[in-house]
Amino acid sequence: MTPPGATPPQVFTDALVVTQDAQRRVVRADVRVDGGRFSHVGPRAPREGAEVVDAHAFALVPGFVNAHTHVAMTPLRAIADDRDLAGFLETLFAVDAHRTEEDVAAGARAGIAEMLLSGTTSFLDLYYFEDAIARAAEELGIRAFLGWAVLDPELTTQRGRPVDNAAAFVGRWQNHPLVTPLVAPQGVYVCGQDTWLAAREVAERHRTFCHFHLSETRREVSEHQAKTGRRPADWLAEIGFFAPGMVAAHAVWLTNHEIDVLAKGGVGIAHCASSNMKLASGGVAPIVELRSAGARVGLGTDSVASNNSLSLLREMHVAGLAQKNHRWDAAALSAQELLDLATVDGAALLGRSADLGSIEVGKQADFSLVHLEHPTLVPARPEAIVSHLAYSASEEAVDSVYVAGQPVVRGRRLVRAEWASIRAGAERAAAALWASRPAPTESKT
Amino acid sequence: MTPPGATPPQVFTDALVVTQDAQRRVVRADVRVDGGRFSHVGPRAPREGAEVVDAHAFALVPGFVNAHTHVAMTPLRAIADDRDLAGFLETLFAVDAHRTEEDVAAGARAGIAEMLLSGTTSFLDLYYFEDAIARAAEELGIRAFLGWAVLDPELTTQRGRPVDNAAAFVGRWQNHPLVTPLVAPQGVYVCGQDTWLAAREVAERHRTFCHFHLSETRREVSEHQAKTGRRPADWLAEIGFFAPGMVAAHAVWLTNHEIDVLAKGGVGIAHCASSNMKLASGGVAPIVELRSAGARVGLGTDSVASNNSLSLLREMHVAGLAQKNHRWDAAALSAQELLDLATVDGAALLGRSADLGSIEVGKQADFSLVHLEHPTLVPARPEAIVSHLAYSASEEAVDSVYVAGQPVVRGRRLVRAEWASIRAGAERAAAALWASRPAPTESKT
Repeated sequence: MTPPGATPPQVFTDALVVTQDAQRRVVRADVRVDGGRFSHVGPRAPREGAEVVDAHAFALVPGFVNAHTHVAMTPLRAIADDRDLAGFLETLFAVDAHRTEEDVAAGARAGIAEMLLSGTTSFLDLYYFEDAIARAAEELGIRAFLGWAVLDPELTTQRGRPVDNAAAFVGRWQNHPLVTPLVAPQGVYVCGQDTWLAAREVAERHRTFCHFHLSETRREVSEHQAKTGRRPADWLAEIGFFAPGMVAAHAVWLTNHEIDVLAKGGVGIAHCASSNMKLASGGVAPIVELRSAGARVGLGTDSVASNNSLSLLREMHVAGLAQKNHRWDAAALSAQELLDLATVDGAALLGRSADLGSIEVGKQADFSLVHLEHPTLVPARPEAIVSHLAYSASEEAVDSVYVAGQPVVRGRRLVRAEWASIRAGAERAAAALWASRPAPTESKT
Repeated sequence: MTPPGATPPQVFTDALVVTQDAQRRVVRADVRVDGGRFSHVGPRAPREGAEVVDAHAFALVPGFVNAHTHVAMTPLRAIADDRDLAGFLETLFAVDAHRTEEDVAAGARAGIAEMLLSGTTSFLDLYYFEDAIARAAEELGIRAFLGWAVLDPELTTQRGRPVDNAAAFVGRWQNHPLVTPLVAPQGVYVCGQDTWLAAREVAERHRTFCHFHLSETRREVSEHQAKTGRRPADWLAEIGFFAPGMVAAHAVWLTNHEIDVLAKGGVGIAHCASSNMKLASGGVAPIVELRSAGARVGLGTDSVASNNSLSLLREMHVAGLAQKNHRWDAAALSAQELLDLATVDGAALLGRSADLGSIEVGKQADFSLVHLEHPTLVPARPEAIVSHLAYSASEEAVDSVYVAGQPVVRGRRLVRAEWASIRAGAERAAAALWASRPAPTESKT
C-alpha cells in the first residue's frame, strides 16, 4: 500500500457529515484530508493543492469497526447452517484441519472485500496463519487487528506451540501502519491456566492486547464450572488473566458479578448478536448492563459460517432488534447508540479512541461516502440519517470507502484489486474445503 | 402496463434455478416464458421466436412475497424510532391525519421501487387511498394485494364510511391482472363487532378476502379481554368473523387454543419479526406452532416506520434468528423453511399457490435473477444458494426482476420509471409530513 504521505490532500465538499463527535453532530460541511488524517471539518475547507470531490449527494460516515470475526472463513459460508455451536464446531474443526495458508489468504481476501464494500474499515480477527490475513489487509487497504489463535499445545493442529507462533507473529508485524498484531487465546474449552497466562505475558511484553471467546454458550459455562468450580469470567479474573485493553467476544451468559469484574478489569466486549442468535445460544447478551457498568462494547459479525454476513449495516439492525425485544423496551439501544457501537465505541474497544471512530480533525481519515439518493435512505433528511444507517441502509448505498485517506472502494468497486480474481480464489478454496467436510450428525441444543 | 400477451417469449439459458417446487430442486436449467408464464423448466428449452438471455451467472429465484406492509408510509421511515407501539402510533396517527392521496401515491411509488429492487414481486398492503397505490403498482409492474382499511365510522379520518369505501375500492379493481383488491379491518382496538362482520360480508360478496392486524401487543390482548372477556382471536371466532383465506398480521400473543382456532378456520398469518422486535412487542410469534397446526404462514416487513426496511432478504434472516434464539433450537426455521415462507408459503397465504411462488411450468413468471458472483454469495455452490438467499445475500445481488414475464428491474434499474423522479416525489411528501409530526412524549412499554 502506498504510504499515506504519498496521497495528495483531498477536499470533500458539502457532504452530510455524520461526525460521531462528542455532540454527535450531523452537519453539512467540507472535509479536508491531509497525510491520511482529517485536517478540516466545517464550512469551506481550504482547497490549496487538494483533489476536490463534490460530496453533496453523500453522507460522510466514519468507517465501521467489526469487533469480532474470522475473516478467512469466507469460503465456509453456509457449510454448517441451522446447527447449534457444538454441531457447528464439529464440522468446522474437521474442515479447519485441512486448511492451508494459501486458502486462508484466499478466504481473507474475499471477506475483506465484503467488509470494505459494506463500509467497514477496521476489523478484529481471531484465527491462525494470520500473516496471510495481514498481507491481504495490506493489499486491499483495510485496518486489521489480528489475533493469532492460542490453545493448549496438545489440542492444536498448528505446527509448533501456538503461543510461540503468536509471539513470532506479533514480532513480525509490530509498528505496521495498518496491521496491529495481537494474541488470541481461543476460550476456556481449549485453554488451560498456563496457556491463558502465557498468552497474557506475550501480549504484555509486546504492548498489545488479548482477544478471546468468553461465555458464548450455557454448555461452555456449565462445563467450566463443573471443572473449576468457577464461571469463566470469574475464573479468568481469579487466575490473574485480565488486563485493561483486552477484548472478549460474545459474553452472552454473564452474572452481574462477572459484568462488574469485566468492567472494572477494563475488559471490553465484542457483541455478536446475529451469530449468537443463529447458533441459538439462547438469552441475549447483557449489553445494556455492560454499558451501564462502564464496559467498552462494540459489534462483531463473527464469521460468515455463523452470521452469515460481514455487514455491520445488518449487524446494527439485528443487535438493536435483539435488545429491544428481549428487554420489552423499544428504547433499548437506540439508532444513535447502535451507530456508536459500530464506530466510536468500536474504536474505543480497540484502544484507538484517539485516532479512529469519528470525523474529527487529527483523526485517521477512515470513512465512507453513503449515497443519500439510495432507495433505502428515503427520506434522506439530516435528522433521519443515523436511523437509516442503523436500521435500513443497504450495502449498495456505500459508494466509496477510504482508509487513512486512501480510496479502497470507489463507485462500488474495489480500488486495489479485481473482485473477479478474489472471487475465483475463494471459490477454489471452497471447492477443496467443502470436499473435506464430514457428514453432519444430528445435533440439538 | 403492457398486457403480458404483448411480450415476446423469452428463454433464460443455463441458470441456477431455485425452483421451490415440491422437491425443492436447485438445478442448472433453461427457463422459457410464454405469454407471461413459465412454459419450460429443464435442459435445453426450445428457442423458437424467443429473446434469449444468457443466465449462467445467475440464480433464477421465485419473486418474494411481502405478506404485510403499508407501502405508502415510505416517507415516514425513521419518524418514530425506538418507541413502543403505543408511542409509535401516537406519532403515526397524528401524521396520518395530514396525508393526501397525492403523498400516498408518492410514498407508494418509492416503497414499490424498494421492494422490486430487493426481489419482491407481490405484496399485501393495508392502508387507505388504495387506488393511488393500485395505480403505482400498475405503473411500476408489481403484483399488489391491496386491503382498504376499515374501522368504526366514528374513529376514522376517511371521508364516508370506511366499509363503503372499501366496497367501492374492491368494485373498481376486480379482475385486474396485477391488482387484487380486498378488505382490511384494522384491528380490535378500532373495529367493533358490526365493523368486523360488515367487512367480512363485503369480502364474501366480492369473492375476496380480509386482511387485518391481530394480537400484536400484550396491551391489545389485555384491553380486549377486559372489554369482552375474550382474547382477540377467540372473540373473532366467536362472533363468526373468520373465513378460510383470510390473513392476519403479527399474531404474536396467541394461546394454543387460538393457534388451533386460526389453523382450523383457515386463517393465515403474516409474520413480521423485525417490526415486532423493533416495537418491543416482546416474546416471539409462535411460528413453529402455527405451522405445525397447519396454518398458512408468510413473512411481512410491516412498514418502514417500524422495520425500517422493505427487503425480504433481510426479513428472512431476522425471522430465522428470532425463532432459533427464542426457542434455543438452531434448527428452528431452517434456511429452506425461510425461503419457503418468502416464496411458496407466501403465495399460499395469498390464495395463489396454483400460479405464484415457484418456478414451475404453467405458473406466472414472477422471478429474479440473482448474481452468483456477488461478494455476499461466496461460495456460489448450488448446495449453498438457499442459505445465501435466507441469510446473507445483499439486495445489490438482485440484478433483474420480472413480473408476469415482463422486466421491471434490469441491471439494478427500474425499467418502467426513473428512480430520480420517484425519489423526488417521496422527499416532497416527506417534507410536508415530517413538518406535521407532534413533539414526542416519553413512552415506555
